[in-house]
Amino acid sequence: MYKCSLERMKDMIQTFSKYGDAGHGGITRYSLSPEAIQARKEYQRRMEAIGAEIEVDDVGNMYATIPGSDPNAKRIVMASHVDSVRNGGNYDGILGVMSAMEVLTTVVEQKIPHKHPLTAMIWTNEEGSLYPPAMMCSGIVCYDYLPDHIKPSFRYEDMMASKDILTGKTTFGEALEKSGYKGDKKYRLSPDRYKCYFETHIEQGPILEDNGNDIGVVDCVLGMFIDKIAFYGQTTHAGTFPMGKRRDAFYAASQALQYLHTEIDKLGHPELVYTTGEVVCHPNVHTCVPDYFDFYLDVRHEDPKVLEQVLNIVKSLESKNWAGCQCKVERGWNRDTVYWDKKLVSYVKESCEELGVSHQYIHSGAGHDAQFAAYVLPTTMIFVQSKDGLSHCEPEYSKPEHCTEGASVMLNAVLKADKDD
Amino acid sequence: MYKCSLERMKDMIQTFSKYGDAGHGGITRYSLSPEAIQARKEYQRRMEAIGAEIEVDDVGNMYATIPGSDPNAKRIVMASHVDSVRNGGNYDGILGVMSAMEVLTTVVEQKIPHKHPLTAMIWTNEEGSLYPPAMMCSGIVCYDYLPDHIKPSFRYEDMMASKDILTGKTTFGEALEKSGYKGDKKYRLSPDRYKCYFETHIEQGPILEDNGNDIGVVDCVLGMFIDKIAFYGQTTHAGTFPMGKRRDAFYAASQALQYLHTEIDKLGHPELVYTTGEVVCHPNVHTCVPDYFDFYLDVRHEDPKVLEQVLNIVKSLESKNWAGCQCKVERGWNRDTVYWDKKLVSYVKESCEELGVSHQYIHSGAGHDAQFAAYVLPTTMIFVQSKDGLSHCEPEYSKPEHCTEGASVMLNAVLKADKDD
Repeated sequence: MYKCSLERMKDMIQTFSKYGDAGHGGITRYSLSPEAIQARKEYQRRMEAIGAEIEVDDVGNMYATIPGSDPNAKRIVMASHVDSVRNGGNYDGILGVMSAMEVLTTVVEQKIPHKHPLTAMIWTNEEGSLYPPAMMCSGIVCYDYLPDHIKPSFRYEDMMASKDILTGKTTFGEALEKSGYKGDKKYRLSPDRYKCYFETHIEQGPILEDNGNDIGVVDCVLGMFIDKIAFYGQTTHAGTFPMGKRRDAFYAASQALQYLHTEIDKLGHPELVYTTGEVVCHPNVHTCVPDYFDFYLDVRHEDPKVLEQVLNIVKSLESKNWAGCQCKVERGWNRDTVYWDKKLVSYVKESCEELGVSHQYIHSGAGHDAQFAAYVLPTTMIFVQSKDGLSHCEPEYSKPEHCTEGASVMLNAVLKADKDD
Repeated sequence: MYKCSLERMKDMIQTFSKYGDAGHGGITRYSLSPEAIQARKEYQRRMEAIGAEIEVDDVGNMYATIPGSDPNAKRIVMASHVDSVRNGGNYDGILGVMSAMEVLTTVVEQKIPHKHPLTAMIWTNEEGSLYPPAMMCSGIVCYDYLPDHIKPSFRYEDMMASKDILTGKTTFGEALEKSGYKGDKKYRLSPDRYKCYFETHIEQGPILEDNGNDIGVVDCVLGMFIDKIAFYGQTTHAGTFPMGKRRDAFYAASQALQYLHTEIDKLGHPELVYTTGEVVCHPNVHTCVPDYFDFYLDVRHEDPKVLEQVLNIVKSLESKNWAGCQCKVERGWNRDTVYWDKKLVSYVKESCEELGVSHQYIHSGAGHDAQFAAYVLPTTMIFVQSKDGLSHCEPEYSKPEHCTEGASVMLNAVLKADKDD
């Protein structure tokens, strides 16, 4: 068994935390921003220092590759992203890039024999925080391999035209040109040149911590759907309109939300998660009864039959009376559960066992670039314990010891994959 | 009994509806905007045509006055506003100005004898839609007469610095200078020069229509309070965080809203109105559990004891557990019920009876400039039936026949006041 370096991991965490440091423990590092470019240059400097060759594809995805013993063998790639959400933490995304770099560095330093070239990769714009949507560039690169129902939102031209949501002035395409990271399409991740795909990421949930396990052996990304649930009432004056005649869309929505919680909880699926995180209230004036209110409902579970049960509850909202308001349900989007490659999952599990690292099987509730890569290459993921399950916020934290264990698990799993052909 | 002209009322409604016509039945006519200045010029033209003398005070309030038989008598003023909310209707505010103009025009045309000078007045910026707050200029003019607890928000300097909420670029003070309607402070409404105050307005509610009455004899503006009710939870990822550990601030707020409706309705006060029209959700992203949600609660009733009962329910929210979130209640503002002058109210009632106009006593649930004027002069209001109770929206409508009846009632009530000294 080979082990990665805790000292190097600590150094990388400290170094990358400077790029976009927001001054209170976290970072804001939008894709293609000056801060993200600092992170890319640091990655490039470190990878060139160990003799890796750098390629950049036409959407800015970066590939640092060290050769294997067989010049004709396909590459094994380890990928993640360096961009963050606004006021995010120092682990989401970047941990996967640091882990990939650490694997390559350990292989070079310890002269670990391997047949396949090994690649540490950066995906451009995973978060989509400045230029929506999330997982933009894995979506573009994997587009031709994706099933039809998730294809349309990832057309190349649409993505290039995606506007900076803060100013509306720059498009993603313009930012890419300006960044200097618009490379060649021929370097894109593809089954012709790559053998399989690994991604290490923080868990972003409390399950590993609650169970006292350092590492998660991820088996799938959960299936999900997002619906918009809208309520149509009548706006009237707060002071002049009797209560009995009102059609208050916010009150209607709050009744429906209680109903959803009650009915969905009755289904009794402990692993089911559902979230109503985004609302619109109109006209949103304290002296007016709202004539419109909507919220998004985000539902995730491995089993499509469970999602179907929840969907039936959601659909039933439309035929009920919510404080005199009409209810309409509109499909946002959905995805099926994406299962990781069974052989790669077993390599991760065996590596945990051989390294003596505490671990468990876990699903990924969050989306990752890996879920698109899975349609192109055999793919799997490794999770590292998150403190308090927090992510996408400044208190996001994973112990450097656990981060290093994650890299060591990935290293040994990669070496198992290296030998399986 | 004297009667106003239906034809002139129809002509005025049509004419003023052009100033700020939004193209689909309503207007957007922010205070001091080019559209509002068109309306002011039309008022000035019509008032000068009947021989009225125009005065403008230092915050742009306009006073058109025709003389009475006693050169030393104080003026009787009829006032309202020409500005509207965004996409408002053709009656709110402007009906009171048209009614005042119609009273003066009828008095001149029919040579109706009267002792006191009569004034048709425009208040600047009643809505506060572009430069908050609402009732800004009545607040400034009446400032010295107001009880302490409603004074602080109407300091002259603060109002002049109030910024255009659409662009943030112009202040109310700058807009006033630029408009050409910054006149002389000596013309302000005051008890030295004015005897009493009338204001005609649309009801903005369905009570008159439901009861088959054309005119409302208003006896007071309802007491009210506005509180902000905030919920503090924890933001976590929609896909990775188990339901049982979540602290969802939107869900907490929706539970508390159900509780408020249940408990307040139990009090059994049919005239009580309460509204939750404005919300904030943070971070308001569909993949994040909200860590913060607030809504405003606006409560109105004539009896302070009833408001106290509601306040006790609101305060009780803080000590309860709302989906694991903390609740804090913050006082927005409040006002006591403002009663109109009993003698003036009786003049309005008698005028309705003498004219054979269907009418009833009614409270004003909405705020009006009259409520500040009431601290300066004996004051009352007249309501005109609103179709479907709608206001602050394009379908806002009152029949021209009812509008003319409202003006006739005001005319005869003014003539009663003219004779009572």
